[in-house]
Amino acid sequence: MPGRTSSTPLRVRYAETDQMGVVYHGNYFAWFEVGRVELMRSLGLVYRVLEQEHGCVLPVVEVQCRYRQPARYDDELLLQTTLGALRGPMMKFRYQLFRPQGGMQVLLAEAATTHVVVDQKTLKPCRLPEHYTAALREALAPRESK
Amino acid sequence: MPGRTSSTPLRVRYAETDQMGVVYHGNYFAWFEVGRVELMRSLGLVYRVLEQEHGCVLPVVEVQCRYRQPARYDDELLLQTTLGALRGPMMKFRYQLFRPQGGMQVLLAEAATTHVVVDQKTLKPCRLPEHYTAALREALAPRESK
Amino acid sequence: MPGRTSSTPLRVRYAETDQMGVVYHGNYFAWFEVGRVELMRSLGLVYRVLEQEHGCVLPVVEVQCRYRQPARYDDELLLQTTLGALRGPMMKFRYQLFRPQGGMQVLLAEAATTHVVVDQKTLKPCRLPEHYTAALREALAPRESK
Amino acid sequence: MPGRTSSTPLRVRYAETDQMGVVYHGNYFAWFEVGRVELMRSLGLVYRVLEQEHGCVLPVVEVQCRYRQPARYDDELLLQTTLGALRGPMMKFRYQLFRPQGGMQVLLAEAATTHVVVDQKTLKPCRLPEHYTAALREALAPRESK
Repeated sequence: MPGRTSSTPLRVRYAETDQMGVVYHGNYFAWFEVGRVELMRSLGLVYRVLEQEHGCVLPVVEVQCRYRQPARYDDELLLQTTLGALRGPMMKFRYQLFRPQGGMQVLLAEAATTHVVVDQKTLKPCRLPEHYTAALREALAPRESK
Repeated sequence: MPGRTSSTPLRVRYAETDQMGVVYHGNYFAWFEVGRVELMRSLGLVYRVLEQEHGCVLPVVEVQCRYRQPARYDDELLLQTTLGALRGPMMKFRYQLFRPQGGMQVLLAEAATTHVVVDQKTLKPCRLPEHYTAALREALAPRESK
Repeated sequence: MPGRTSSTPLRVRYAETDQMGVVYHGNYFAWFEVGRVELMRSLGLVYRVLEQEHGCVLPVVEVQCRYRQPARYDDELLLQTTLGALRGPMMKFRYQLFRPQGGMQVLLAEAATTHVVVDQKTLKPCRLPEHYTAALREALAPRESK
Repeated sequence: MPGRTSSTPLRVRYAETDQMGVVYHGNYFAWFEVGRVELMRSLGLVYRVLEQEHGCVLPVVEVQCRYRQPARYDDELLLQTTLGALRGPMMKFRYQLFRPQGGMQVLLAEAATTHVVVDQKTLKPCRLPEHYTAALREALAPRESK
């Protein structure tokens, strides 16, 4: 059982390119944010509500990204997001970014972001509401869930 | 008497360019923000403190910008900022962005941003602390200060 | 006859907010760019192709924006874009940004951007390919088209 | 001998924050870019010239970043940049971002970016001009330079 994958279409904006004629590497992280928010939404979890009603935020504590092929202006991309790990207040998301091309999916980038659930006011680690944990556990990619 | 002008040096980052090989037009507004914060700092007013201690924020309600010459990667620019108007909770800043070149200052852009002082929680218009108003009034460019 | 209007849905990204809890004013311009590109696409004109095949770019020479209500994280917005003017190498686009709310469309911002068609290499004003001009003329909002 | 370290002061812009009240994680990469460009400049190498005169660009192929403490609006930061590796067309830069605080340097983030020198037109790996390689070799941090 492969865990839940969320597929998010994205179109590259001109604002996201740099003078090398490709997307600036730092701009991929806003896309990955869209990917994990949509993965959560597909599980019935709305990140905005988590902040507003439960006072939890999910700051990023670590990122990694390998850029294999450049993304270019106006490209229509597909971002695949999975939950790679969930341990106490720590969550790790994984991302694969593709460009469909001639019936193939060209892999442009692979990335991971690690987050810690913290209280919005104290910024101390805290617990997710129980139904969040339950839904996320269901979504875990299996090889990392045991 | 010409009002207080703040001069802020800026160097163009690669991240700020786009694939046209020039700075993306939307990125100028982060520079203008630096300009008005430095103008305030030169008057002894720290915008961060205004937010943290007085609970006031200065959202932007209107912007205009004319782009005359492109700014390019690694350019060393000079941003001149003045306070153009101060009426009740409304403040208007004016900006001129220059690139020094062969002993001349080439004008790249002219802009204005209008702000309203609001309470951070209610987002309703509110009053600046008195010493802010006094210092800003001193800094006003004269043709607009009567 | 009201001219062509393009309606583009947008969802606010976390990356687009600032610590005031609203979208940073400079970030609206990337949305307006999406709006005008989609207006052109709806006319059969692909901006990417204009750059790649015709060597024309459309740098921004002037922008104005009035911010009426803040856009917030995760908001689903609707951007309406029209072509306001087309005179020689100059084009002006107009934008209205709405948030649907309780069956109403709340107007968040109104903006305009003015562009000049220039040759990608020389950055001198140049002509759009004829079929671009023809399609854009059709799309013109009428009160400004005489 | 510790290799060349470049120290770059940075002040956090409002535009760089998000609604969590801290700097958005993706925005650190523009700072790291400033750090490596300034490291190169301190060696007499101007990245802009490398692009313009030698037709070489340095796209990022991999990034990693650990965020230890949040950077906040108006913070005055110090970015330390070193060259960690130089092997054929591959270069790796390392970064440590500090906030001076009460006589101490608080470590906010540690990062690395890996680049490949490519020809601007073909995007195929190519050689740096000889004097670049020589200067960079001098700057290498020693434990990784053998």
